[in-house]
Formats: sequence, C-alpha cells, structure tokens
Amino acid sequence: MFFDNINLNMIEILRLGHRINRDTRISSHVALVARALNADKLYYTGQKDSSMEKSVMDVVDRFGGSFNIEYIKNYKDILKNKKIIHLTVYGMPLKDKITEIKSYKDILIIVGGEKVPGEIYNLADVNLSVGNQPHSEVAALGIFLYELSNSKFSEFKDANLRIIPMEKAKKIEKKT
Amino acid sequence: MFFDNINLNMIEILRLGHRINRDTRISSHVALVARALNADKLYYTGQKDSSMEKSVMDVVDRFGGSFNIEYIKNYKDILKNKKIIHLTVYGMPLKDKITEIKSYKDILIIVGGEKVPGEIYNLADVNLSVGNQPHSEVAALGIFLYELSNSKFSEFKDANLRIIPMEKAKKIEKKT
Repeated sequence: MFFDNINLNMIEILRLGHRINRDTRISSHVALVARALNADKLYYTGQKDSSMEKSVMDVVDRFGGSFNIEYIKNYKDILKNKKIIHLTVYGMPLKDKITEIKSYKDILIIVGGEKVPGEIYNLADVNLSVGNQPHSEVAALGIFLYELSNSKFSEFKDANLRIIPMEKAKKIEKKT
Repeated sequence: MFFDNINLNMIEILRLGHRINRDTRISSHVALVARALNADKLYYTGQKDSSMEKSVMDVVDRFGGSFNIEYIKNYKDILKNKKIIHLTVYGMPLKDKITEIKSYKDILIIVGGEKVPGEIYNLADVNLSVGNQPHSEVAALGIFLYELSNSKFSEFKDANLRIIPMEKAKKIEKKT
C-alpha cells in the first residue's frame, strides 16, 4: 500500500442519509475527494442515486484507480472489523487524535447527513472534528484524509487520462 | 495576525460564476471553510444569492469573527495589489508552490465555477492544483488553506456559540 510509515490498510467512507438532487453534488464531492486521497470505497445510505454514482464512476473510468461506490440500506451491515471514525463538528480535535488513528488498520469514516442518529456518536471509536467550527463535510473529509495520507495524493498508474501540471495552461495526456 | 512564521496578512477568496440553487450549497461550503481557516472575505461573481449570503452570515453572527461576503459584478475590480492564486486541477502541485506562497503578503484565491475565463490562467501569479485529480473545489480550498495556515484553524474570541470538543457527545456553550 501507499502508506509507508503507518499501519493503514483500507479506508472506506460511509455517507449517511443521501438525498437525490439536494445532496447529489456534495456526495459526489465527498466521493471524489475520498478517491483522490487514498480511500478505497464509498458506501451511502438514504436514497439510491444512479446519477451521482455514474458521475463518480465516470471519473474513475477516465482517471484510473479502483475506487468504488455502493448503496446500502442499513449501515449496521458494514461496521464489523473496522475502526469507526465519525466526522462531526462536535468531536475531538484532529491534532489530538491523528496519531492514534494512524495506528489503525482498516477504518470506516462516517460522514453525516442532515440527521445523524445519536447512536453513531456511541458506536464510533473516535468522534473527530476538523476545526470545531461549522464548515463543510467535504473539506473536513479532505483535510482529514490529507493528514492521514501524510500529504500524499493517490496515484493511478492505470489512468486513461493524466493531468500534466502546468504553470499557465491546461494539459491533459491521453493513454495511447 | 495568527500567522506566526509567515508574511501573510490578508486572505481573500473569489468564487467565479455562482448560480442560484445549483451552486448555493457548494458556495456556502467554500465560504465557511474559508472562514474556518483564517480567510477574511469571500467575493463572488455570477448571480447574486441573498439566501447563500444569509446562511454564511448566520454562522458568522453565531460563531464569531469578522468574515464577510460580497457580491461583485466584475472580478477585475478586485485584483490590484494582491498575489493571485488560481485553484485549478491543471495547476502546479501544492507542495511545489506552498513555500513561495507563504512569502506573499495579501492574497486572493480564485475558486472557479463551471466556465473559467482563459485569461484567469494568465493573470494568476500561481495556478495551483491540490492533487491534480478531479475532486472538489471545497476540499481543494480547505486543504490549501490548511497548509497555508500551518494546520491552525481560526479562533473566534467574540463567539456567541462555542463548540466544546467531546469524546461521545455534543456540547455547545452559549455566551452569557
């Protein structure tokens, strides 16, 4: 795996209570930032949203990797044998918990929706806050994964499209 | 200012091409993550969106600080006397540019919308990418500001509401 100096093996995300249309863009952003920062999979509950799934899988098809997305009815089905990190504005500061979290092997990061069931706070191994200010689940997940990944982004060796960083232009390379 | 070891004095954000409804949540997230990570102000172009402005200023009123939001017709009016950082998936990697950017004094971070005018790439002092993968302008801005802020979040001494970090509960303190 990409994590040279930590035990981490698998990072999954669980997005709770997705609503079609209202949450489609935010949940897509959650999925794409997870993919860009070394996560393996997004599960989501709420309403099944084929359009959101397609927009994410289109990026995977073009830009590579094996990131996956799966709708599930009941989040309790996927909690076993993983450490559970619940991202919430009310949780403990990132800097206080990051070392402990880096010692975990397989983790599931729960990203709340509008109404997070109270039991999530109890079943989580860590309730984690990125800043203890109201802002964005997308940014909170991004910053947390960035810390967890030691500032290293995903690399996708099988990519059909590859963006070549440029000072003043757009450059994208297509696999031939 | 909060930046102990860098020259930074002012961080402003410019969100281009905002569209009511379609972008309301994403632009709110952009504003709130900017506020949580030491930015001073969000300007935006496109459609004026009172509902988005209100949702952001409600957070400022309750949770403190002097973050502000302003609709402008023409982005060219606010480019003077600032270093311009344009966040784009096509730009140069964050790790290659962060030291240079930390030497700037006043910066304006441009966060694109659907169609970014080509001239933005030329007028920017730095075209900056957070990961060179398609993901999220909210996460990209969050991670960039987090790096720029040396991992320190904003502190709001005048807050009416303050979240107290807890292991397994929600706690919010109201100024009396």
